[in-house]
Amino acid sequence: SRPRDLGVKLGVMHPGPLNAITDVAGVRVGHTTRIEGDSIRTGVTAVVPHGGDLYREKVPAAIHLGNGYGKLAGYTQVEELGELETPIVLTNTLSVATAMNALVTACLRDNPQVQSVNAVVGETNDGYLNDIRGRHVTEADVHSALSAATEGSVTEGNVGAGTGTSCFGWKGGIGTSSRKLPESLGGYTVGVLVQTNFGGVLQIAGVPVGPLLERYYFRDELESHADGSCMIVVATDAPLGVRNLKRLAQRAMLGLARTGGIASNGSGDYVIAFSTATGNRISVGAGAVRSLTELSNGAVTPLFLASIEATEEAIINSLFAAEDMTGHGGNHREALPVEKVLELLKK
Amino acid sequence: SRPRDLGVKLGVMHPGPLNAITDVAGVRVGHTTRIEGDSIRTGVTAVVPHGGDLYREKVPAAIHLGNGYGKLAGYTQVEELGELETPIVLTNTLSVATAMNALVTACLRDNPQVQSVNAVVGETNDGYLNDIRGRHVTEADVHSALSAATEGSVTEGNVGAGTGTSCFGWKGGIGTSSRKLPESLGGYTVGVLVQTNFGGVLQIAGVPVGPLLERYYFRDELESHADGSCMIVVATDAPLGVRNLKRLAQRAMLGLARTGGIASNGSGDYVIAFSTATGNRISVGAGAVRSLTELSNGAVTPLFLASIEATEEAIINSLFAAEDMTGHGGNHREALPVEKVLELLKK
Amino acid sequence: SRPRDLGVKLGVMHPGPLNAITDVAGVRVGHTTRIEGDSIRTGVTAVVPHGGDLYREKVPAAIHLGNGYGKLAGYTQVEELGELETPIVLTNTLSVATAMNALVTACLRDNPQVQSVNAVVGETNDGYLNDIRGRHVTEADVHSALSAATEGSVTEGNVGAGTGTSCFGWKGGIGTSSRKLPESLGGYTVGVLVQTNFGGVLQIAGVPVGPLLERYYFRDELESHADGSCMIVVATDAPLGVRNLKRLAQRAMLGLARTGGIASNGSGDYVIAFSTATGNRISVGAGAVRSLTELSNGAVTPLFLASIEATEEAIINSLFAAEDMTGHGGNHREALPVEKVLELLKK
Amino acid sequence: SRPRDLGVKLGVMHPGPLNAITDVAGVRVGHTTRIEGDSIRTGVTAVVPHGGDLYREKVPAAIHLGNGYGKLAGYTQVEELGELETPIVLTNTLSVATAMNALVTACLRDNPQVQSVNAVVGETNDGYLNDIRGRHVTEADVHSALSAATEGSVTEGNVGAGTGTSCFGWKGGIGTSSRKLPESLGGYTVGVLVQTNFGGVLQIAGVPVGPLLERYYFRDELESHADGSCMIVVATDAPLGVRNLKRLAQRAMLGLARTGGIASNGSGDYVIAFSTATGNRISVGAGAVRSLTELSNGAVTPLFLASIEATEEAIINSLFAAEDMTGHGGNHREALPVEKVLELLKK
Repeated sequence: SRPRDLGVKLGVMHPGPLNAITDVAGVRVGHTTRIEGDSIRTGVTAVVPHGGDLYREKVPAAIHLGNGYGKLAGYTQVEELGELETPIVLTNTLSVATAMNALVTACLRDNPQVQSVNAVVGETNDGYLNDIRGRHVTEADVHSALSAATEGSVTEGNVGAGTGTSCFGWKGGIGTSSRKLPESLGGYTVGVLVQTNFGGVLQIAGVPVGPLLERYYFRDELESHADGSCMIVVATDAPLGVRNLKRLAQRAMLGLARTGGIASNGSGDYVIAFSTATGNRISVGAGAVRSLTELSNGAVTPLFLASIEATEEAIINSLFAAEDMTGHGGNHREALPVEKVLELLKK
Repeated sequence: SRPRDLGVKLGVMHPGPLNAITDVAGVRVGHTTRIEGDSIRTGVTAVVPHGGDLYREKVPAAIHLGNGYGKLAGYTQVEELGELETPIVLTNTLSVATAMNALVTACLRDNPQVQSVNAVVGETNDGYLNDIRGRHVTEADVHSALSAATEGSVTEGNVGAGTGTSCFGWKGGIGTSSRKLPESLGGYTVGVLVQTNFGGVLQIAGVPVGPLLERYYFRDELESHADGSCMIVVATDAPLGVRNLKRLAQRAMLGLARTGGIASNGSGDYVIAFSTATGNRISVGAGAVRSLTELSNGAVTPLFLASIEATEEAIINSLFAAEDMTGHGGNHREALPVEKVLELLKK
Repeated sequence: SRPRDLGVKLGVMHPGPLNAITDVAGVRVGHTTRIEGDSIRTGVTAVVPHGGDLYREKVPAAIHLGNGYGKLAGYTQVEELGELETPIVLTNTLSVATAMNALVTACLRDNPQVQSVNAVVGETNDGYLNDIRGRHVTEADVHSALSAATEGSVTEGNVGAGTGTSCFGWKGGIGTSSRKLPESLGGYTVGVLVQTNFGGVLQIAGVPVGPLLERYYFRDELESHADGSCMIVVATDAPLGVRNLKRLAQRAMLGLARTGGIASNGSGDYVIAFSTATGNRISVGAGAVRSLTELSNGAVTPLFLASIEATEEAIINSLFAAEDMTGHGGNHREALPVEKVLELLKK
Repeated sequence: SRPRDLGVKLGVMHPGPLNAITDVAGVRVGHTTRIEGDSIRTGVTAVVPHGGDLYREKVPAAIHLGNGYGKLAGYTQVEELGELETPIVLTNTLSVATAMNALVTACLRDNPQVQSVNAVVGETNDGYLNDIRGRHVTEADVHSALSAATEGSVTEGNVGAGTGTSCFGWKGGIGTSSRKLPESLGGYTVGVLVQTNFGGVLQIAGVPVGPLLERYYFRDELESHADGSCMIVVATDAPLGVRNLKRLAQRAMLGLARTGGIASNGSGDYVIAFSTATGNRISVGAGAVRSLTELSNGAVTPLFLASIEATEEAIINSLFAAEDMTGHGGNHREALPVEKVLELLKK
C-alpha cells in the first residue's frame, strides 16, 4: 500500500485520481527493469509528455539545477530554446550515452530529414547494488521503456531507473505523486516522478524517522555518506511559460528538503518541468508568430505549492514501495521498515 | 525564552555558544528600531562581516536568488567579482535607496579616493503594519544600526528590519541561529540571520502548526495571501571559495522549506553568504596574485547541512521572539501563540 | 553630422527613419544635463517604453550581464518576473540611489495603493570629468529627464547621463541607432541607446582607429586604463518573449565587440531589452490567463543581427557626437578627431 | 600559409611561438579525420589539458554558453564543481553519445574504482557535407584522437572535428591561435582552438569580406542560412579561479563577434576554458583544505583581451586552412578564396 492509503497524509492539497504524474492528461511512463544474476540491478524509466511525436510537437520545458553533480544530457538546449523535443529518459550514471543514442535513433527513424536532436537523459548512480561499470543498459532497454510507456497508474519502487538506487540509507527507487488545484484556481494538475538515490536526515510527515531509527547523515558526528542524486520530473497541464516552468522546477527542491534531503556535494539533483498545455506546443513548420496563453505571475503560487507537495510525497512513495535488495558484490540494502515507520508516525 | 531553551530541538547538529550569526568570529549585528505613533513600525538591521573597513578588506561572497521578487541592491557586482565591500543592510522595500545612500556616504567618508562602491541592501515589505509609503527610514537610521553593530548575542523579534514584518500569518521579525562543526570536520561555524516576512504552511520541528492552528496558505482552497519575503544572511569562518559560498547560500532555501515556506510568486527570497576566513580577504592594493586556502568540494557537505539547520532554526526563533503588534491603519498581527505551539509539539 | 551622414556605413541592415531608439513606436527619451562651474559634468537620461503608466502597463523585459561590475538597480526582479514596471533611468555611479528614490516617488504619486515598485537604474562612472563624490544629481534632475522624455530624434554626445563619460580614451556620451527589418521578415524595428564610458582598442567600420591614432588599451604593452562601463538599452516592437529578449540583449555585446570593446574587469556592461508589442503588456488587474503572441525561435535571427548592428552604430554615434570637455580637477577629455578618422576610413 | 605569415595581423597583442593552443605548456591536441567514399566527411578532435590522468588530476574549468542550441555533454557538472575530469572531445552533433562512451571507457580502464565520470564532448553539425545521420564516428575514432594528442603545432582546416564543417558560407574547420602576455603582466599564455561551423557577415581584420564577396547572412534582405555553431576551447597557464575562467570564456564570444559572427538562433556556441596552473589542480585523494594561488580580479583584463584576439585569429586561421570539399549528396563547399581576400585586405 502507498503511504496515503496507510493514512500518511502529506501536505494540504489534494492529489489527482492516480496520485501520479500520469494524472496530467497524456503523460505516459514506461519502465525496463534489469535484475539479472548477482550483479545487474539497473534499468530505464521513460517519461513521455504526450502521445504524439515529441520532435514535431515540442513542449515548453525548463530545467532547474538543484545540485549539478550529475551527467544530465540535454540541459543547455532546453535552457536556450525552452522546449523539449524527446521523451525524458532516466537510467544509471554510466549509461547516459547509451540512452542518448537510443533517443537519437528513435528520432532519426521517425523523422527522415532530421540531422539534429536534443536527447534529454537523467541519471543517478546505482553502483552500490548494480555492477555499474559493466554498463549493462542497452539501447534496446531504452526502446523497451519507451514502447512500454502508458497512461494510467505507475509502478513504484525497485523498477526501471530506480531498480538499484538507495535513499536515506534505505532502498530507494521510483516514486510518483500529484496535486490537483480546485476549479476556482484553474483546476490544473501538477504531477511528479522521482528517481530517489540521495541522503540526508529522513523525515516523514515531519517525523524525524532517520534519527529515530538511527540512520542519517551526520550520525555520531562523522561524515557518513550522503551523496547520491535525485532526478525529478514535474509535469503540468497548466499553461506555464518557460520562465514560470523554471520557477515550478525550482520549487521541487523545497519538496525534497521537506523529506530531509540536503543536496550534498556529490548529489546530482535536477528538476525537469514541462507543460502539456496543448495550445502552447511548438510545432515544427509553424509560422514565425505563435499565439499562446500563459498563466500570469500572480496565479502561479498554488502550482508552486503543488510542486512542493507532490515532490515530497513522490519521494516518500518511492521509499514505501521499494523492497530489500541484494546485488553487486553482495551488497545489501534494506527497505524502509514500513511497519516501524507507521508506528513512529502514530506517536 | 528561545525555542531551544524550551526544548524545541531542530536538526542533528550543534549550535555555537550564542546560537547566533555572531558565533562566527568577528561578525557584528546592529539594529535601529522605529516604532513611533500609530503608523511607523519599521527599522534597519546591519550585518557587518568584520571589524575593519569592508571596502579595504573585502570578503568573498555570493548571493543566491531563492525567488527574485525583491529590490536587493548590489547583486550583480557581488556575482561578478565574488566579493562584498560594504556591510549588509536590511530594511523595508521602499527604503532600499536611502540605505544605499547611507552606505555610500559611509564609504566615501572613510575612503577619500573612492569613486565607486557597491552597497548591498536587502529588504522585505512591512507595509501591513508600517506606513511604508511614508518612507520613514532615514540615512541616520542606517548609520545608527551600523554604529550599534556589536559582537555577542543578537536581539530577535520585533527589532530592526524585522520590526514590522509578518510570517506565516503571525508576527515575524529578526531571528538568528548557528551550527558548529566538530573539530574532526574542521570545527567551522555557520551562522544565519533572517528577516522573516513570508508565508506558506508553517511546520515546527515537523509538526504542522499552521494547519493545526488553522492558519496557512491554501486553507479552504482559497488563494490566501502567501507573499512576502525572506532575507537570509549566512556567515561562515570556513575558507569557502565563491562557488561554494553560492552553494552554501542555495542550501539555506532548503532550511526555509523545512519551516513550510514555499517561495511564493511575490516573495523576495535572497540568501547572501560570505566567508570571514582571514587569509582569503581581498585587500585593496594587494598584488596581482593572491594566495588562499579553500575547502575542497568533497568537504563542504557538513556546512550545507549546517546552513539548512541554522536557517530553519533562525526562522523559528524569529517567530518565537516576535510579539503582538498593532500598526498602520490599525492593522494588527498576533504573535505566534507559543504556549499552544509547545503543547502541539509535545503530542 | 552623424557618421552615417558622413558616409560611414556600419553593417548590412537598414536603420529606421530617425536611426534612433525612438524609431520603436512609443519609446521616449529625455535628458537632464548638468554642466555647472568647474566640476559638475553629469546628468540623467530616461528611456520610457511607452506613453502610459509603466506600473499599470508593464512591458516584457530581460537584462543581460555583459560584465557585472556596476550598480544597476532592479536586476533581480526583472529577471524573476520578466517585466519592467518603471522607465529606465541612466545616471552616474554614485547617484543610483537618488534616481531610485525619484522613480519610487513618481510611482507612489501616480499609484496611491502601491507599496512596492522595482526601479530600474543604470550607471557609468563619470568621475574623471565630474565631481562624482559630490553626488550632484538630484531627484528633481530625474523628474526633469522623465518629463522631458519625448518621441522623435534624440540628442547625442555630451548630454544627460553621457555628459561626463569617456570612451576609448576620447570623450564618450549618449548614442543611439536603429535597424528596421524588411516587411518579409515582419517589418520589426530594433532601437538601441547607449551610455558609453568604456575602453579597449577602437575600430570603426573595421578600421583600427585606436592603434592608428596610438590611443588604445595595451599600447606599449602596459596595462593602460580600459575600465569604465557601457549601459545599453535595446527596444523592439517585435513580440519577443522574455527568453528571446534575453537573447536579444546578449547579442548587443557582440555589437560592442565590433567597436573594439573588451568588457574589462572593471566594466559594468549591462543590456536591458524590452518589447513594446502592445498585445503582450502585463496589465495590473488582468486575469490569471494571458493571451499573447510570440515570435518563434526560428524567426529571431534577423533581430539578433539588428541588435548587433544598432549597438555598434550607437556607440560610434556617441563618439562622433561628443565634444571636448574640461571638468573636475582640470581634467580634460578630447573629442574623437572626426576629420582624421574620416581620412583613415577613406584609405 | 597562415594569415599571420601572409601579413594579416589581427589585434595588438603577440602570439606565442606556435600561435596555437599548444603554446600553453602541456596542452595536447589530436585529430581523427574520416574522409571516406562519397559521404563520410567527419572526425574527432581531442584537446587534452595535461599529460597526466585528468580524472586523478582535474583542472579548474568553466563553460560559457554563447548560444545553447547544441548538445554539449558535461556542462552542469563542470559548472557545479568547477573542474574538468576528462579531455575535451569535439565531434559532430549526432556522435556526442559515442564520444561520451569512449571517454567513459577510457576513464574506467585507467581507474579501476571509478563509478562516475563527467565526459565533456562538444559538437557542431557537419550534415551538409557529411552523412551525419549515418553516425559514422566510432569509439575507436575517439580513442585514436586521444592517442594522437601531442604537444607542438596543430593541424588546421579540414581535419578532425572540422573535417566537414562550414563557416560564413565557405569551408570551415579547425583553427587555433594564442597570445602571450609580456612578463610585466605575468607572462601568461592564452591559447584557443575552434571548430568553426557558423554564419554571419564575415569580416577579416575589419574588412567586410562577406559583403565584398557577396556571401553573407541577410544578403538581398532574405533570411539566408546563418545557423551552425562554434565550439571554442580556451586554455591558459594563468592561475585563474573558476569565476575568472568563466569570464575569460565569455570574452571569447567577443572575438567571434569581431569576425562577423552573430550567434544565430540555431547556433551552438560554447566556450570551455581551463587553467593548467599546476598548483591549482584538484587531486583525487587530497585533503579537505587546498592551498592555491589566484590572479586577482584587477589583473585579468589583459587575459580578456588575449582571449578575444586569439579567438578571432583562430577562426580566421580555420578559414584560411580549410580547402574545397565535396561530400554527402554531392554537396560542395568552396574554400575561402584566399588570394582574393588578401587583395581585399591590401586595399
